[in-house]
Amino acid sequence: MQFKGRTVLAFVLLGMLASSIITVVLMSPGNPALSSALASILGTSNKQADMNSTSGANAAAAKISDKDMSKIATTYQLISQSYLNKVENDTIINGAINGMLAALDDPFTSYMDQKEAKEFDESISSSFQGIGAEVTMENGKVKVVSPIKGSPAEKAGIHSEDIIISVNGEKLDGLTLNQAVMKIRGAKGTQAKLEIIRAGVGDPIQLTIVRADIDVETVHATMLDGNIGKIEITQFSTNTGDHFIKELTDLESKGLKGLIIDVRNDPGGLLNVVVEICSQFVSKGKPIVLVEDRNGKQEPTVSKGSSKDYPVVVLTNKGSASASEILAGALQESVGSKVIGETTYGKGTVQVTFAKELGDGSNIKMTVFKWLTPKGNWIHKKGITPDITVEQPDFFKVTPLTKKADLKINTSSDDVSSAQMMLNATGYRTDRSDGYYSEQTEAAVKKFQQAVQLPVTGIIDSATADKLEQAVIKEIKDPSNDLQLKAAIEELNKQIVR
Amino acid sequence: MQFKGRTVLAFVLLGMLASSIITVVLMSPGNPALSSALASILGTSNKQADMNSTSGANAAAAKISDKDMSKIATTYQLISQSYLNKVENDTIINGAINGMLAALDDPFTSYMDQKEAKEFDESISSSFQGIGAEVTMENGKVKVVSPIKGSPAEKAGIHSEDIIISVNGEKLDGLTLNQAVMKIRGAKGTQAKLEIIRAGVGDPIQLTIVRADIDVETVHATMLDGNIGKIEITQFSTNTGDHFIKELTDLESKGLKGLIIDVRNDPGGLLNVVVEICSQFVSKGKPIVLVEDRNGKQEPTVSKGSSKDYPVVVLTNKGSASASEILAGALQESVGSKVIGETTYGKGTVQVTFAKELGDGSNIKMTVFKWLTPKGNWIHKKGITPDITVEQPDFFKVTPLTKKADLKINTSSDDVSSAQMMLNATGYRTDRSDGYYSEQTEAAVKKFQQAVQLPVTGIIDSATADKLEQAVIKEIKDPSNDLQLKAAIEELNKQIVR
Repeated sequence: MQFKGRTVLAFVLLGMLASSIITVVLMSPGNPALSSALASILGTSNKQADMNSTSGANAAAAKISDKDMSKIATTYQLISQSYLNKVENDTIINGAINGMLAALDDPFTSYMDQKEAKEFDESISSSFQGIGAEVTMENGKVKVVSPIKGSPAEKAGIHSEDIIISVNGEKLDGLTLNQAVMKIRGAKGTQAKLEIIRAGVGDPIQLTIVRADIDVETVHATMLDGNIGKIEITQFSTNTGDHFIKELTDLESKGLKGLIIDVRNDPGGLLNVVVEICSQFVSKGKPIVLVEDRNGKQEPTVSKGSSKDYPVVVLTNKGSASASEILAGALQESVGSKVIGETTYGKGTVQVTFAKELGDGSNIKMTVFKWLTPKGNWIHKKGITPDITVEQPDFFKVTPLTKKADLKINTSSDDVSSAQMMLNATGYRTDRSDGYYSEQTEAAVKKFQQAVQLPVTGIIDSATADKLEQAVIKEIKDPSNDLQLKAAIEELNKQIVR
Repeated sequence: MQFKGRTVLAFVLLGMLASSIITVVLMSPGNPALSSALASILGTSNKQADMNSTSGANAAAAKISDKDMSKIATTYQLISQSYLNKVENDTIINGAINGMLAALDDPFTSYMDQKEAKEFDESISSSFQGIGAEVTMENGKVKVVSPIKGSPAEKAGIHSEDIIISVNGEKLDGLTLNQAVMKIRGAKGTQAKLEIIRAGVGDPIQLTIVRADIDVETVHATMLDGNIGKIEITQFSTNTGDHFIKELTDLESKGLKGLIIDVRNDPGGLLNVVVEICSQFVSKGKPIVLVEDRNGKQEPTVSKGSSKDYPVVVLTNKGSASASEILAGALQESVGSKVIGETTYGKGTVQVTFAKELGDGSNIKMTVFKWLTPKGNWIHKKGITPDITVEQPDFFKVTPLTKKADLKINTSSDDVSSAQMMLNATGYRTDRSDGYYSEQTEAAVKKFQQAVQLPVTGIIDSATADKLEQAVIKEIKDPSNDLQLKAAIEELNKQIVR
């Protein structure tokens, strides 16, 4: 987890906002019939009148008083008339709105200005406007991990490992990964002229790419040995339900005998989408999730689908939040599926977005409901406890090196300890891992440097540190090191009737 | 400095808000003639019309638009109608005001609710309602440092070193110093029944004290050897000017030959007060400070006093902020006084308070002007550079021990390094100070424990840590360790014509 934020791969845009999306009921219900919108999403429209009457009762108290309005107007006036620096109107107004929402002390409630609202919409729909290349930062260079299938980047002939050095004449040197990504992205229909360095090609390559809407795939399916299927969901976005069903049908047509649903590091998404996916596994009429409003009134959402005749398990970790937890809870309690991995994040609230109410392209995402598991458990700040707890190897959590100074023999620091963990994870054994740079540590560093064709100094300089981190990331991505996946396969093999 | 915040003495109330007071022009000018108020404080009322016309020009742009007002009202309504938890009206409104001010990104601009506004007023006037005892926390007990002269605490017979164990029947055990202080304080006229333990007296003593308005002395004068006077100013509060002049006159009547004005760790205060004090030393008509408004218009404040025939120096450190810097700048540039010590904090803005405008007991403190030194230097984020730079001994900056674990031989940590600095400062020499707990470090700890009558274990447990910290605080308060003061005396002795 710690690794991820700082060094690992970043989709062009996606991921920037992903951690802020968590079980959002995506819509702007017409004010004031808020609850009806939930009701319609949950398919319980017969309750609409009932929930409306509750809103009605609060309506009188909800209006801001003239006295309060005047206090806010006075503050506005003092700032615009007297503050030392002249301030944009929007800065003050957005400040007021941010301040009101911040006073709720709820990390999941926030205001988004026009630009943020647009990014949020892109993020929640897992689409954005750009060229469609997954990029990463390596040794200060922007490197293509892979072009997205069917994207303008792929069609234009961008390859994995290409280094992007400039966009429309602007050099990317010295930018952070996010800054570079912002230069590459742009509105649909506009051009990105890229200058690219490709291994084996002498001169830089010039490519002109017309940006388009890019869909980021949120569902990844594989058939493993023994007809065990694995479907990874990275986010519950607009099209995730359709894609999931397509992939599931495909696996079933190939003789699926057991299914692993992998929601590790999935931050959540849309409530209706997770409900749709759960409906593939929960018997008709059984609850998937209960939604509770501010007055404590509970509303169950029941499955309209049917159960499967093959076993299903769910893979979770600390990064499985919100919609992922709804899925884990529903399958655990209403299907009897085993949840395998780590205790989940623990987010038991539902947010609603209010774009229409603001009417100017900005948006408010606000916590409006709690959700409970089918048996009525509120897992907020607790998470879903796995039936089978499995931690990944320690090196999955290693801290990136600070690269503030070279590391060398006879010194002692947290960085040395992290480096020792990386050396051991990549097969270069050291005698200690306590952060003391021993002779054997130096010997291991030399062997590593020889293997990756760096000068054999025994000192961890920033080039060695980069290579070490890349080697560890490779190990982390190697399925044979994925102890949680192994446990899931083992459990399914027990359950499958051969 | 680091020591101060966490462990050292705290006046009852004062100090809690002191760091937020910085050159405040204390008043609520009638809206919209803001600038006239500054003009009147600076004695330049002939400029009033001129500056008003500027405000007038902005007035049209300053009013909040209906569209913005409606957006704020909508947000208010969404929160009070739909947010998962019910929220107090004031929470939302104060949130809006805090948010507008926070958007300015100015640490010196803030909203104060009724309670905070009252505390601020007390703080800026260096007065509060309570019993009038300076207390500290020692080994978890609230200990009286000294009763304030003329206070109810002194009249009731409270002594230095008394331990206060309960207030009106409520035990103070387990409270922080601030929590205990809040119990001891209270409105004028109310009773505080204290239970006190006094060394040498068997049973606890019961004292009933009627709380009153307490003035905290912000001016401390002493005559040193050679008729060198020292006046320390701890804050520029309402009465500070009068008290300063009284103490100065008193020193002069005793044959003052040179003066040290000590504004170290003085966070500032009222602009008119520092101007009054500077007027004692700056020749009539010479500038003390220039004030610049948002349109870049500068207004000098000139002295109405006269210069002195004895030399004056100013002692500063990193904690000398705002009004203290106005004083240092004025004396340095308009009198030619030497500034001695460390570069000052660097705050070059003036705040105005707007209580009348809000009209409900709350208050907004907002940055409205810049101030510049007589020669037109804006020292914001730079500070005043001393003519003679003198740092205090290293142990003045030692970090308090974390007391998370006992410290013992053959371990290594930042805590051990701090402890070694404390041992050396108090005369228990160690061979190293790099944080490695050597044999000699253990020997020094044993000697220290013997001297302060603790069990001689050679291990720094929390009792030993407390005693070590107290010993260092004693050294810090010892004038013979005050290298900056020594340099000031030396400089004055050079300048004084004997």
